[in-house]
Amino acid sequence: MRVLGVDPGLTRCGVGVVDSLPGRRARLVDVGVVGSDPATSIDLRLLHVASGLDEWLDRHVPDVVAVERVFAQHNLGTVMGTAQVAGLAMVAAARRGIPVAMHTPSEVKAAVTGSGRAGKEQVQRMIARILGLDDLPRPADAADALALAVTHLWRPAGALQGGERHELTPAQRAWAAAEQSARRGKHRGAPSRTSR
Amino acid sequence: MRVLGVDPGLTRCGVGVVDSLPGRRARLVDVGVVGSDPATSIDLRLLHVASGLDEWLDRHVPDVVAVERVFAQHNLGTVMGTAQVAGLAMVAAARRGIPVAMHTPSEVKAAVTGSGRAGKEQVQRMIARILGLDDLPRPADAADALALAVTHLWRPAGALQGGERHELTPAQRAWAAAEQSARRGKHRGAPSRTSR
Repeated sequence: MRVLGVDPGLTRCGVGVVDSLPGRRARLVDVGVVGSDPATSIDLRLLHVASGLDEWLDRHVPDVVAVERVFAQHNLGTVMGTAQVAGLAMVAAARRGIPVAMHTPSEVKAAVTGSGRAGKEQVQRMIARILGLDDLPRPADAADALALAVTHLWRPAGALQGGERHELTPAQRAWAAAEQSARRGKHRGAPSRTSR
Repeated sequence: MRVLGVDPGLTRCGVGVVDSLPGRRARLVDVGVVGSDPATSIDLRLLHVASGLDEWLDRHVPDVVAVERVFAQHNLGTVMGTAQVAGLAMVAAARRGIPVAMHTPSEVKAAVTGSGRAGKEQVQRMIARILGLDDLPRPADAADALALAVTHLWRPAGALQGGERHELTPAQRAWAAAEQSARRGKHRGAPSRTSR
């Protein structure tokens, strides 16, 4: 299973792709940041991020997109842009028939470090260890996106995806799976680790 | 000038299109609501609203899209969905090279009724009078979308669009205008007033 994790943000949106391996292991496929220039207008910033997310989805053809659940209570200054980017990621996935899962920051910290109150640095260190990386993934947004993806891979069996039901019919799912495997055959190159 | 107003919402997103007429008058082109079913998952709801907004833009080819400015402080329960739909409207416009303007609810009330503290009913009555309608536009979300569009038409000369700069270069603007007039020739039919 391939999961694309999105840590939503308007200035820096972290994106990380991991594949599951046998025995609760995971492999880094790609990680990076999609950003937008705070000096441009909000509509063009959102369009830029939407196009970037489209490219990531087309390049890596994930089975699931895992998005950090955004809460209205936090960071009033940036919450609107964050919510909007999360919405763009969900629409981009839904347009391709890819299921969307949402996980809270505490779920991610608990899954990756064992503690729902772990700090950023601790999450980065554990993600580097889990994925067998020599260096900590940077920036932090990129590490968070990888942590989201790993959290989804390691979610308890039978758990609903981040509390969201996914409403595709069996026929839609079959169609999406077939289209996905066709696109994957066309687009998927050798795994890369370049940051974008 | 044709303005498409969007009163963002996930369950009911009001959409209204008006044309300016000489002498500070305006004509209703179309008004309605794009909605999504609260029983389905958030990703599919957002996709449904995005597709609906795309249809409105393709059908009416506005010169400007006016979106209500959403504040994080209000309506914590629905603000995330509202912000996400506003983001989708902005991206849909930006993708077509259509400038986006944002206006606050008080700006809209002041422009349409003369008072920034007017009630919903008062806005509906004034919009009906301004557009020469026999009945009040309903639901309220649809009336708000028309009020947004009229507010944009009547904004003070030289005012920045809702405080946002629009960052298209002159060449991009010329290209967008040319493409728009081509699309308009292809798609634009007789003005309709059906609610969707």
